[in-house]
Amino acid sequence: MNQVKIECCLSPALLHLFNLDKTIVVVIDVFRATSTISAALGNGAKEVIPVDDVEACIALGKQTPNSITAGERNGEIAPGLEYGNSPSTYNKDFIEGKTLVLTTTNGTRLLYQAAAAEEILTASFFNIQATADYLLKQNKNVLLACASWKDRFNLEDTLCAGAIYQALQNRFQSDCDSIRMANAMYNLAKDKLFGFLKDSSHFHRLSKLGLDYDLEYCCKKNIFDFVVKYNGNALQIVS
Amino acid sequence: MNQVKIECCLSPALLHLFNLDKTIVVVIDVFRATSTISAALGNGAKEVIPVDDVEACIALGKQTPNSITAGERNGEIAPGLEYGNSPSTYNKDFIEGKTLVLTTTNGTRLLYQAAAAEEILTASFFNIQATADYLLKQNKNVLLACASWKDRFNLEDTLCAGAIYQALQNRFQSDCDSIRMANAMYNLAKDKLFGFLKDSSHFHRLSKLGLDYDLEYCCKKNIFDFVVKYNGNALQIVS
Repeated sequence: MNQVKIECCLSPALLHLFNLDKTIVVVIDVFRATSTISAALGNGAKEVIPVDDVEACIALGKQTPNSITAGERNGEIAPGLEYGNSPSTYNKDFIEGKTLVLTTTNGTRLLYQAAAAEEILTASFFNIQATADYLLKQNKNVLLACASWKDRFNLEDTLCAGAIYQALQNRFQSDCDSIRMANAMYNLAKDKLFGFLKDSSHFHRLSKLGLDYDLEYCCKKNIFDFVVKYNGNALQIVS
Repeated sequence: MNQVKIECCLSPALLHLFNLDKTIVVVIDVFRATSTISAALGNGAKEVIPVDDVEACIALGKQTPNSITAGERNGEIAPGLEYGNSPSTYNKDFIEGKTLVLTTTNGTRLLYQAAAAEEILTASFFNIQATADYLLKQNKNVLLACASWKDRFNLEDTLCAGAIYQALQNRFQSDCDSIRMANAMYNLAKDKLFGFLKDSSHFHRLSKLGLDYDLEYCCKKNIFDFVVKYNGNALQIVS
């Protein structure tokens, strides 16, 4: 067994409990920031610049050539932004070659909070295996960080943490109850992921906005074979 | 279905996310504060006074007739206190008629944090059903509050929350992912509770101190048929 360890943080409000030094933090926001980021990059976006504030998003969009602004507050397109946070809409025709300036309720904020980490990745069900393969090569401590919903525990990010943990095939040390729970919950859900998540608070919230198709899309596993890394300014594919 | 709702808070560091107004908070610290409290009261202690500080515990013990001071820091008897926090040692011969002044790492602190609640109970596996029966009669919103370990999620408190939720037999509304998860995890663990908890971070921590017997005792279900209520000063049996 490897000597490096893996832990899981279930809410940004618990991030201060973990040592980020010499650690790769993997930010997970399945519904929907990190799914959108993967979808945009997978369909040819040049890069994704995450910002935590709608005003900053608008301002940066104006300064950045060939960019679009997008993002949501409480699951809906934030006033003043051009597009929403629906991964299924980020197809090649729309996003190829562009810079996406993105702000979301939970995910982008967590990226900023994790600044002390050695590396920051984002992951979703779209790139479980690629993320796990990258982590195995780095041989560093890992913290799977769930974006949650306004700091409240959620199922979808926890299940994605469990999925990444399983893809690592016990090659990390762990004495973390959050990892044990995420692993057990993913075992329950993995063969019927979308059906399982239909009974979750975030699904109920977003389904009322007519986003069922988008949420089902977010449950697709390993449709992209790349890692997404945050360089302190933008998110880009690591090849 | 009842119109009152139930939620679960997985860590004291998340308690601020929940509305405690008109809510019964059930504090759960299976390993071992709330198990000790039930064991002491079940074996005839007059009352248990929780304090969050070792010095205050010693001072209050001196002022209180026929009392003992007990408590732990990091799983061991805190220097200056008379006894530890092992429920299995609180038998009738030892505790009957006495006041227990208790301080622990996680559980007593959470009692103070929940002061804004309409009522505060403590629960453990020892009194799942009695606690659930009481909650059903009150017809008020419920928050199951896990004491966790130094604010980190733990399995044993989560499983106890799941056990109480199941004993309520779907009589409360809930759209809380923590409740869903606690319920699913308890389904996995309920037929082999101690075995399941042998692979948990708190078990590993306390087992190193030779406390296996005590931890197994904490996994006994429904050995007491009473509710424990905090009156702002002391914990007492509600008949």
